[in-house]
Amino acid sequence: MSKVRVGILGSTGSVGQRYVSMLKDHPWFDVAAVSASEASVGKKYKDAAKWVLDKEIPEGIGEEEIIGASPSEMKKAGVELVFSALPSDAAKRLEMEMVHAGLGVVADTSAHRMDPKVPLVIPEVNFEHLEAVDKQVEETGGFIVTGPNCTTIGLAISLKPVMASFGLKRVLVSTMQALSGAGYFGVPSMAILDNLIPYIKNEEEKVASELLKILGEYNTERFVDAKVRVGASCHRVCVLDGHTEAVFLETSEGASPEDVAKCMTEFVGEPQRLKLPSAPERPIIVRSEPDRPQPRLDRLSGTPERAKGMSTVVGRVRKESALDNGIKYVLLSHNTIRGAAGNAILIAECLKAKGII
Amino acid sequence: MSKVRVGILGSTGSVGQRYVSMLKDHPWFDVAAVSASEASVGKKYKDAAKWVLDKEIPEGIGEEEIIGASPSEMKKAGVELVFSALPSDAAKRLEMEMVHAGLGVVADTSAHRMDPKVPLVIPEVNFEHLEAVDKQVEETGGFIVTGPNCTTIGLAISLKPVMASFGLKRVLVSTMQALSGAGYFGVPSMAILDNLIPYIKNEEEKVASELLKILGEYNTERFVDAKVRVGASCHRVCVLDGHTEAVFLETSEGASPEDVAKCMTEFVGEPQRLKLPSAPERPIIVRSEPDRPQPRLDRLSGTPERAKGMSTVVGRVRKESALDNGIKYVLLSHNTIRGAAGNAILIAECLKAKGII
Amino acid sequence: MSKVRVGILGSTGSVGQRYVSMLKDHPWFDVAAVSASEASVGKKYKDAAKWVLDKEIPEGIGEEEIIGASPSEMKKAGVELVFSALPSDAAKRLEMEMVHAGLGVVADTSAHRMDPKVPLVIPEVNFEHLEAVDKQVEETGGFIVTGPNCTTIGLAISLKPVMASFGLKRVLVSTMQALSGAGYFGVPSMAILDNLIPYIKNEEEKVASELLKILGEYNTERFVDAKVRVGASCHRVCVLDGHTEAVFLETSEGASPEDVAKCMTEFVGEPQRLKLPSAPERPIIVRSEPDRPQPRLDRLSGTPERAKGMSTVVGRVRKESALDNGIKYVLLSHNTIRGAAGNAILIAECLKAKGII
Amino acid sequence: MSKVRVGILGSTGSVGQRYVSMLKDHPWFDVAAVSASEASVGKKYKDAAKWVLDKEIPEGIGEEEIIGASPSEMKKAGVELVFSALPSDAAKRLEMEMVHAGLGVVADTSAHRMDPKVPLVIPEVNFEHLEAVDKQVEETGGFIVTGPNCTTIGLAISLKPVMASFGLKRVLVSTMQALSGAGYFGVPSMAILDNLIPYIKNEEEKVASELLKILGEYNTERFVDAKVRVGASCHRVCVLDGHTEAVFLETSEGASPEDVAKCMTEFVGEPQRLKLPSAPERPIIVRSEPDRPQPRLDRLSGTPERAKGMSTVVGRVRKESALDNGIKYVLLSHNTIRGAAGNAILIAECLKAKGII
Repeated sequence: MSKVRVGILGSTGSVGQRYVSMLKDHPWFDVAAVSASEASVGKKYKDAAKWVLDKEIPEGIGEEEIIGASPSEMKKAGVELVFSALPSDAAKRLEMEMVHAGLGVVADTSAHRMDPKVPLVIPEVNFEHLEAVDKQVEETGGFIVTGPNCTTIGLAISLKPVMASFGLKRVLVSTMQALSGAGYFGVPSMAILDNLIPYIKNEEEKVASELLKILGEYNTERFVDAKVRVGASCHRVCVLDGHTEAVFLETSEGASPEDVAKCMTEFVGEPQRLKLPSAPERPIIVRSEPDRPQPRLDRLSGTPERAKGMSTVVGRVRKESALDNGIKYVLLSHNTIRGAAGNAILIAECLKAKGII
Repeated sequence: MSKVRVGILGSTGSVGQRYVSMLKDHPWFDVAAVSASEASVGKKYKDAAKWVLDKEIPEGIGEEEIIGASPSEMKKAGVELVFSALPSDAAKRLEMEMVHAGLGVVADTSAHRMDPKVPLVIPEVNFEHLEAVDKQVEETGGFIVTGPNCTTIGLAISLKPVMASFGLKRVLVSTMQALSGAGYFGVPSMAILDNLIPYIKNEEEKVASELLKILGEYNTERFVDAKVRVGASCHRVCVLDGHTEAVFLETSEGASPEDVAKCMTEFVGEPQRLKLPSAPERPIIVRSEPDRPQPRLDRLSGTPERAKGMSTVVGRVRKESALDNGIKYVLLSHNTIRGAAGNAILIAECLKAKGII
Repeated sequence: MSKVRVGILGSTGSVGQRYVSMLKDHPWFDVAAVSASEASVGKKYKDAAKWVLDKEIPEGIGEEEIIGASPSEMKKAGVELVFSALPSDAAKRLEMEMVHAGLGVVADTSAHRMDPKVPLVIPEVNFEHLEAVDKQVEETGGFIVTGPNCTTIGLAISLKPVMASFGLKRVLVSTMQALSGAGYFGVPSMAILDNLIPYIKNEEEKVASELLKILGEYNTERFVDAKVRVGASCHRVCVLDGHTEAVFLETSEGASPEDVAKCMTEFVGEPQRLKLPSAPERPIIVRSEPDRPQPRLDRLSGTPERAKGMSTVVGRVRKESALDNGIKYVLLSHNTIRGAAGNAILIAECLKAKGII
Repeated sequence: MSKVRVGILGSTGSVGQRYVSMLKDHPWFDVAAVSASEASVGKKYKDAAKWVLDKEIPEGIGEEEIIGASPSEMKKAGVELVFSALPSDAAKRLEMEMVHAGLGVVADTSAHRMDPKVPLVIPEVNFEHLEAVDKQVEETGGFIVTGPNCTTIGLAISLKPVMASFGLKRVLVSTMQALSGAGYFGVPSMAILDNLIPYIKNEEEKVASELLKILGEYNTERFVDAKVRVGASCHRVCVLDGHTEAVFLETSEGASPEDVAKCMTEFVGEPQRLKLPSAPERPIIVRSEPDRPQPRLDRLSGTPERAKGMSTVVGRVRKESALDNGIKYVLLSHNTIRGAAGNAILIAECLKAKGII
């Protein structure tokens, strides 16, 4: 099987770097093009990117020349599928240009997540939403699939098996989000040391609307939101990577904490059945210690090696007596792996497995 | 008016140090005795205490000799009222010894908070519970009043005016608590840097039970819990001082965020009416910025000077559509000032104002 | 005595905010004009400045209208003396425009520190360099006095009495500098959490050249560098405020650690003799504990209230056997108070005391 | 080749855990015994150790039963070589008991480092000091080899090639040391957040004396100190792992920064020549960026996989004009890998390669 040639839009930013790093030696994909803004075009990747990850730049990529972010350049490089890590303004415009030029796009940007024709996918949760791609291809020749906000993603994964087993009526979530979620330059050290910031712009709205689309259905015509009441309070804390979330929920049928933990532990989705390269063995790891998950200790959980950071880690599953059929727990999800590049790559693996690319 | 002579139990620990610091130049109280464990007795205070506050040891106290923690020693020093900052085991035993010897005790320890005869008091919230002191004096000659856990206290203050104006059915709170809440040596730096710990032993249970007692009534015979459903999820974050709490609540009657903010801002209690020395001008300060309160910026809010750290700072009051008549907000309360020594001193000022001491 | 009307260039930045905050209720100076870049002109100060200090904006200033950074605007506002907190490019141009228009300027910017006609002053160390102002006034009608880099300033203060008492041959310094030294947005949290950065652009060169000018002489014609060998290694650590420096030095005559500590403790300069409002009682505070100074505990040392953060705190004075007549110690200096606005205000107080303004 | 059976003294502490983790799947050694203090004897390892490393406990070891720390227990388990990670008091006594019982001991504890018969070894620096083992075996039947303090080790490695090429007269070092150097519970978060502590007990003395022994010679009779003047100033900063050190030095012969960087880069020692399993390909990695090494980015440098954290990373090699033939640079060394367990394991590999075990 020859590898699919992929391009990266916004390859020099911090999420772009994560794509470059995670696609290194990928069994199915080959990075054939790295693009960035005008100012970087023509430079070597290693000179254009201020590399911020702990691992070094993969050797081959460092020497690649940055190309312009246009469909024609992508096609010239033989690219079939484009990963987008663009800032929102550029995303809005450029992603659709790619689609209309007949390319496939997988984006973890927010620009098109809520578009009525665009699936918003976490492969373990709503693999079947990928069907909407067919209609896009029919209409435009290309297609776009999006992944959710980094805060929504671990929450949706943890809720899916509970909803399937016991029904879900109400979800309240309070987050403690990592600094990397705001981008490398997003939070000045002077703003956060010995401090926290109880506000992340638009985040609470995104969590609610995205969650309902993901947990909802695709009826071959359109996406229908799940019927769940969702509320969020979002906060930034002084942690490098890994979003922690305190979840309170009301199920339709009564379920003990043990029931909930069991259905989470046993949960697998299509990526696990298809044995996709980046699929974690277990989408949800439930820990039994009283004081876990902790971001520094648990954010890179998961097997195999390629799936480290792709599992949602859940702990402290317990009864919540202030809600009817109430359950509460704490979850942790790696915001720049599962919450961004990793989920997008897993979506691409699904597309390949389905024969779409 | 001559000053009341007070003693401090556990004066060398970090809460004890806060008492020493806050009682400096107090207009009504004079620190006449500092006690500590056997090993320190006879030493000068400045030699026995490993001083950890940013301000220097008040001069007079530094030279004081540590006395033993017995009622007779306290009485020999002419002490009328004892503040207790003891560790829980010692608190259980020693506080009652003081009471039975006819002394008054104000404790921010947990040992006797839930005792059916002991009032658990935040002066702005349930000043009237202090009536229970009379019965104690009748029975034993002495008395004890307790202050709540540092996590409960800001929450109770913020809820009081809402409950009074609109009724309260349900409260869910997710906390982001400061390191000092665990004591100076409580959290190793290796455990918390680039991390958070989503667990604080017994804390969630305390919040629920203490809140109901405080918001409940004293019917001259016993304390009757408030009828509110309360749930908590408690977490430690890398902040020195100041507990931040994300609160979701369901009121009995509908109220807009503006209504709620207004009733909080206008709220005053008995300490304000009595113009007590440590009473903050406003028990609740409501901020209108989208990203406040923040612990480092807001934890020392409040006027006058002596009341810095005594106000609860609330922000982001907004609608919560996942609950009926739902409201959510974020609060901040200084855990070692209002959450410990400061509240106890305010209780003592109430006792003095009522003529009990 | 009527107050001197002063203006602030670059008033909305983080150093500008420090000026605004420290000049509040100043007994000799009145903030008559706050200027900023074009985009802010005409706005209220409180709307133009993203206020980052822990204390609130002084009330009067918040309502002031931002004026343009031109000499004519300053003069229209009745300003006699201008404090400059401009970024370096703007400083280079604008400070001299002010001087040539006959205004007095006190700058803690680097643009003109090494100019042969411009004194670089720490009032306790080289008050006599202010004489150079006369010649400037003669030539241009106006004048400019500069204060040194935040890293040089505590070092120079600590060295002055040692040099005076025992002579100074060699100084090696290794710094651990605070985040605020890079400006509020200077160091991303992602760059420094669980990390340090062993590099600060141009800092080592500045320390060496500035130190020699300050410790040197003004011979009524020009500044003559001190004859000392100076080397520095500069590093950024995860501390909000307060530069800590490990100093190794070789004196000309032998001196015991006790001798050195004594001459530091006893050191006073002209600001102390003149009892200037912002002069700390003691320019150097020597601590005897084995583990001090520490930035969080000691950075606001000093009396009176107005001089908090103006003292250099020294500790661990001990022998260094790897150098002849070797001594080593650790010092701490508040980088945005003594290291910037505070030193500039103290210079202005000297100018007022000398009758120059 | 059958594996050498090794035991670990103090296996449940944080350095002990590092041994357990690094010896997992070691090609030459097999962990046959884990011992700890009385209270833990008989428990399973996973129950006795409060595991603090980010990686999980190696599976086999978790189920092992803790044995007592006596030579007879070690021998009963078939142990030939014992790694000691004991606290100093216990180390003083128990390590020698093992030796006198005929066992081999490799210790990174300080108890016996300066003993005149005990070699203090960094394999790349003074492999030849291992000869002293023969005499020990002759006298007692067993032997002990020690590794240096975590602060000395990276410094000695970086100095070795410079000394060999250009001679070394004077070394001044100012350290910025990681929290893990004080043990997991060593530094309370309240002590270090937004702070640094400019003092580490006895550290400066250790650096000087150990460095001279390591850089000195073994003349088949005794260890002769190197003739170098050494001075240190040691400080704790808020970094989890990785000691950073600013080094100033005076060489005998003039050398340019390029010369120094070159001799460091080319440096290899006996472990590299013997291709030992834990030997890093390059003992010193010299980086050319202006702002490296940084602890979070560089502490796990080195190849192959088993040697990550074993290389000393050097950067900013530059001239120091305040010293004759002056050079300065910054180094980084992983304090719990190369600075403790890793160096000890590399020593053991040397002993195996030499046929001593």
